[in-house]
Amino acid sequence: MDLKIINGIRSLAIDMINEAGSGHPGVCLSAAPTLYTLFANHLNFNKDDGTWINRDRFVLSAGHASALLYSLLFYSGYQIDIDDLKKFRRKNGKLPGHPELNQKLGIEMTTGPLGEGFASAVGMAIAEEYERNLIGKEIINHFTYVFASDGDLMEGISYEAASLAGTLKLNKLIVLYESNNVTLDGKTKGVFEEDVIKRFEAMGWHTEVVSNGEDYTSIDNAITKAKTVLDKPSLIEIKTILGIGTKKAGTCEVHSGVLSEADMALVKEKMNITRVPFHVSKDAVITYRDKVDQRTSAVYNEWVNSFNAVYEGNPEKKKLLLELEDGNIKLNLKNLKINFSDNMKEDMRITNSHLMNVISNLMPLFIGGCSDVSRSTMAYIENGKDFKINSNKGKNIHFGVRERAMGAILNGLALSGIRPFGSTFLAFSDYIKPSIRLTSMMNLPVTYIFTHDSIKIGSDGPTHQPVEQLSSLRTIPNMTVFRPADVNELVGSWDYIINKKIPATLIIPKEEKGLIPGSSIEGALKGAYIIKKEMGRLSGIIISTGSELETAIEISEELSLKGIMTRVISMPSIEIFNKQPEEYKESLFPIGSKIIVIEASNDPTWNEFIYNKKYFLNINTYGISASKTEILENLGYDFNSLLEKTEKLLK
Amino acid sequence: MDLKIINGIRSLAIDMINEAGSGHPGVCLSAAPTLYTLFANHLNFNKDDGTWINRDRFVLSAGHASALLYSLLFYSGYQIDIDDLKKFRRKNGKLPGHPELNQKLGIEMTTGPLGEGFASAVGMAIAEEYERNLIGKEIINHFTYVFASDGDLMEGISYEAASLAGTLKLNKLIVLYESNNVTLDGKTKGVFEEDVIKRFEAMGWHTEVVSNGEDYTSIDNAITKAKTVLDKPSLIEIKTILGIGTKKAGTCEVHSGVLSEADMALVKEKMNITRVPFHVSKDAVITYRDKVDQRTSAVYNEWVNSFNAVYEGNPEKKKLLLELEDGNIKLNLKNLKINFSDNMKEDMRITNSHLMNVISNLMPLFIGGCSDVSRSTMAYIENGKDFKINSNKGKNIHFGVRERAMGAILNGLALSGIRPFGSTFLAFSDYIKPSIRLTSMMNLPVTYIFTHDSIKIGSDGPTHQPVEQLSSLRTIPNMTVFRPADVNELVGSWDYIINKKIPATLIIPKEEKGLIPGSSIEGALKGAYIIKKEMGRLSGIIISTGSELETAIEISEELSLKGIMTRVISMPSIEIFNKQPEEYKESLFPIGSKIIVIEASNDPTWNEFIYNKKYFLNINTYGISASKTEILENLGYDFNSLLEKTEKLLK
Repeated sequence: MDLKIINGIRSLAIDMINEAGSGHPGVCLSAAPTLYTLFANHLNFNKDDGTWINRDRFVLSAGHASALLYSLLFYSGYQIDIDDLKKFRRKNGKLPGHPELNQKLGIEMTTGPLGEGFASAVGMAIAEEYERNLIGKEIINHFTYVFASDGDLMEGISYEAASLAGTLKLNKLIVLYESNNVTLDGKTKGVFEEDVIKRFEAMGWHTEVVSNGEDYTSIDNAITKAKTVLDKPSLIEIKTILGIGTKKAGTCEVHSGVLSEADMALVKEKMNITRVPFHVSKDAVITYRDKVDQRTSAVYNEWVNSFNAVYEGNPEKKKLLLELEDGNIKLNLKNLKINFSDNMKEDMRITNSHLMNVISNLMPLFIGGCSDVSRSTMAYIENGKDFKINSNKGKNIHFGVRERAMGAILNGLALSGIRPFGSTFLAFSDYIKPSIRLTSMMNLPVTYIFTHDSIKIGSDGPTHQPVEQLSSLRTIPNMTVFRPADVNELVGSWDYIINKKIPATLIIPKEEKGLIPGSSIEGALKGAYIIKKEMGRLSGIIISTGSELETAIEISEELSLKGIMTRVISMPSIEIFNKQPEEYKESLFPIGSKIIVIEASNDPTWNEFIYNKKYFLNINTYGISASKTEILENLGYDFNSLLEKTEKLLK
Repeated sequence: MDLKIINGIRSLAIDMINEAGSGHPGVCLSAAPTLYTLFANHLNFNKDDGTWINRDRFVLSAGHASALLYSLLFYSGYQIDIDDLKKFRRKNGKLPGHPELNQKLGIEMTTGPLGEGFASAVGMAIAEEYERNLIGKEIINHFTYVFASDGDLMEGISYEAASLAGTLKLNKLIVLYESNNVTLDGKTKGVFEEDVIKRFEAMGWHTEVVSNGEDYTSIDNAITKAKTVLDKPSLIEIKTILGIGTKKAGTCEVHSGVLSEADMALVKEKMNITRVPFHVSKDAVITYRDKVDQRTSAVYNEWVNSFNAVYEGNPEKKKLLLELEDGNIKLNLKNLKINFSDNMKEDMRITNSHLMNVISNLMPLFIGGCSDVSRSTMAYIENGKDFKINSNKGKNIHFGVRERAMGAILNGLALSGIRPFGSTFLAFSDYIKPSIRLTSMMNLPVTYIFTHDSIKIGSDGPTHQPVEQLSSLRTIPNMTVFRPADVNELVGSWDYIINKKIPATLIIPKEEKGLIPGSSIEGALKGAYIIKKEMGRLSGIIISTGSELETAIEISEELSLKGIMTRVISMPSIEIFNKQPEEYKESLFPIGSKIIVIEASNDPTWNEFIYNKKYFLNINTYGISASKTEILENLGYDFNSLLEKTEKLLK
């Protein structure tokens, strides 16, 4: 009967692909026994409670196997019917070309870009460890499974994540690696010849090999064994034949596309399945569902009882559990008595660290880390230990020099109810961009903290000096970027980030800042506001952000001595300002005003606000290795040069 | 005497750092014996002919060890004097905070972002293999050495590159891995605990371990042995103590910053060196230079003789050698008889492939590859074999699913005289961004080819549909982006790329295109031109690029039927257009004209051209999984919607 169900699942998957006219049939045929075995015999889930916080996680890192996953979810009884399967890859369908986050349907995250799922799963396993220790193993105690292909393992992101997972001994993480020696472009021979098992052993992983991917008993045994490993993550290499059963089996030609009529007939005949598309054996479905139900319903019911007991008996944990379930944490940072003095001068990275510690005290689920520069970004929870396995509840994750994996791991943490942060230098935000895009696409409450925010960082030189990175981040759809200029704006930024629960990027200058006269939390919450009013008839408006704001104010003051009256607008977040009512926008920018922007970036977004690009006093070239003062002079960005340019533009 | 020289070199390095007030003393102290041994006994170079094409390459992947490298280059007799050393990290100095490409001074590439140097060195080793087979081993036959730290090896990019190097059996590549268990944030314990040697063995590398980094004889033996390996790249793990000799030796506190007075005194005393900063022992310098000269001058002179013999006796090779030396290849693509018919309709990826094959026939040094989607990008040299080790002269490199390493490898190829190209989908250009930035910073003639260029790609869904990537690429300083709309513009783009020898990105739509009436190669070479004149009094100008241009022209035609006369500007390259004389710019855009932009991106750069952002008919949201038609309708970007919006804006 197992084989009948497996064949039913793969048959549906290839029907979906042929109906859609595109997809990836090869892996759907070869991986069916693996995924069936996992779902039928191991994965704890509840089709009627897809967001059950203690479900086992399953991440389809090889997202191109989507049709197979959907077929299996249909078999599993999620809210997917045959009509949905027929609308695979179509507008208004439930089932897009690559999986898109939909926990209720059993889709744990958006995948497709190879390696991302693998790395985010490491984040889920870290979240499980942290939450289990925080809340108790009667509430959180589950496995995280990944299905990965050769392509996933070739990506550097999966290496980074695997190396960290091995070091952290994340034993609840189990990767099913489909090894078939074929990629989109051909054979892995000449391209990917390493000994993957040995590599993972070198990284501290438990490994197993199943030599025949059709042998579901061996797959089952391997998973069973992996679950008993106590101090290592597990990689199970399952050797398969891509597109098994077709004429092109074992070649890259069956990787994507649709099966020919002849191949479809051949495969279905081999599987002993009628050629009628979307035919489903009721018998197979019922047998499978009964099997899953029998195994999982006891587990689920027991959990519900534990949950209720804990929930009712413990107000502290009740709060935590509610947070975990809906993630809606409300923090009124504005009203907190945070002790900032009017004449303080402090490196803003330190101020930010203080604030993060305040937030951390209020939010047990606020955890994160840094890719090996926490001494420089200072985004560190002083009152939390370093994250380690085994009940230390450490809040600081040392990602190592692994920016790329850090982003994906933060996504995995957020998908598991954590409110994560991660930090590095702004120049290296480029490394994380692919994961930041997924953060935004999945609308996850991840906060990226980037310091060392312009050419001003000095003698480390152009490789470390960001220029175009602000633009790169601001153009990501659904990402909100904050570049606060002082303590008030920083508080406002965090207030917005925590309460609105959004994908966010926080840019922190590596400079001494205090409270700028006129700054306000409320203003920051609107994205932009007047920080300095004109002292007479308006000659022009200067917009500035973050690190450059004080310079802009000084320029405005200097100009007023010469009778040129300017207004200064601080705009810590363009995205938030753009959401304000027109009335508010016009109150800041009266129609017809001359507008100048001062920001040490080349972000063309500012052209939205100005008449001509020369009104943007920007940095549009790489920096140099020199002192801050020398750099600014060299690039014509010192105070005097900016003053002169501004005056000239206003004349 | 060896030790005296080693101590002299490290002493200078820490003096430089203390004089500069910042730097990375730890690695300069610990790695001195390794780099000394390499330079003194193995590296073939000529201080007076830094760009000698057959020099051994040395890449300082751990770029933060810059002071040590500069000190060694000073010892080696390059054009660096004590005053230069004193100006380390200062404006107008020769020696920036991290190494910046300067082959004449012995600096093979810009490094600092960890892992990049390692991966580019793999490119240099591929170039050496290719060029050796192309030109002959009497002209090209050298090693590529890398100095890498724990941080370099933690980065996914180095894994990707190492995996490929092992698969390709690049035996001329030798990596000196300084292993000291310390990173910026602390110990590698709990962060990076893998068995690196075993991992590299799993990837097909020859490995060796030197257990004491002060033992230069063992280091020497290990390098000697690595040079004899015939079928594997080599990794030599050299165990060192970071900041050896200081009080904080072996801790992260000596990683960066300056040494205290006390530490400086202690170290110098241990090294038996006077405390006078920048003291140099003439004896040590002379001994070292003699040693190097004796070893290398014979090699160099022999090479010069071989070169002259080949150069004079073989006009074909002479041409090649000239190309290799100055890289100035002139191709007049315009005048080539390329057979394109007026009414052709062909997938532009195929047309591009034809063109690339034409270029390849004319340019032996035009090679490249794809990160496993060459069947989809079609950027493939049909008349060249696949690159393999051992004299096959293959022009197509199969990078595997390793976008990140591909970029850095392309940089390495370009640094070695190759004119490389690399391709993947535009959405995945994000993966390569850090290397693209270095391409631009080093001004290397690398061509990135990105297909699948907008939300129109269809049912693969939002993860595969680029939106903000055009902006991301166009904002990189010194990168020229081309988005040609038809065959003429494609020819123009390649003509510009090849002849101007620039960092370039070529965006190719996955759509059928032909020759658009009015298109021209000359126009493309100016970045923008009038492709359709207005048929009467000008009501507005429509700018469009690439895939959307034909739609823009159709809209213009439709509007003219309604009496609304518009001009259509095709702008395949904003960067090139911005370099044109004002007069030309104004001839395209008469002052006061209403301008509308149609491009399926959210690139805010277009705001430079328009009055208000609503005049940019853009895509500023993620796509969906559906057919192309459905996506366009869903996002209001189908022909009728665009026509309606344009008409409304012109009224």
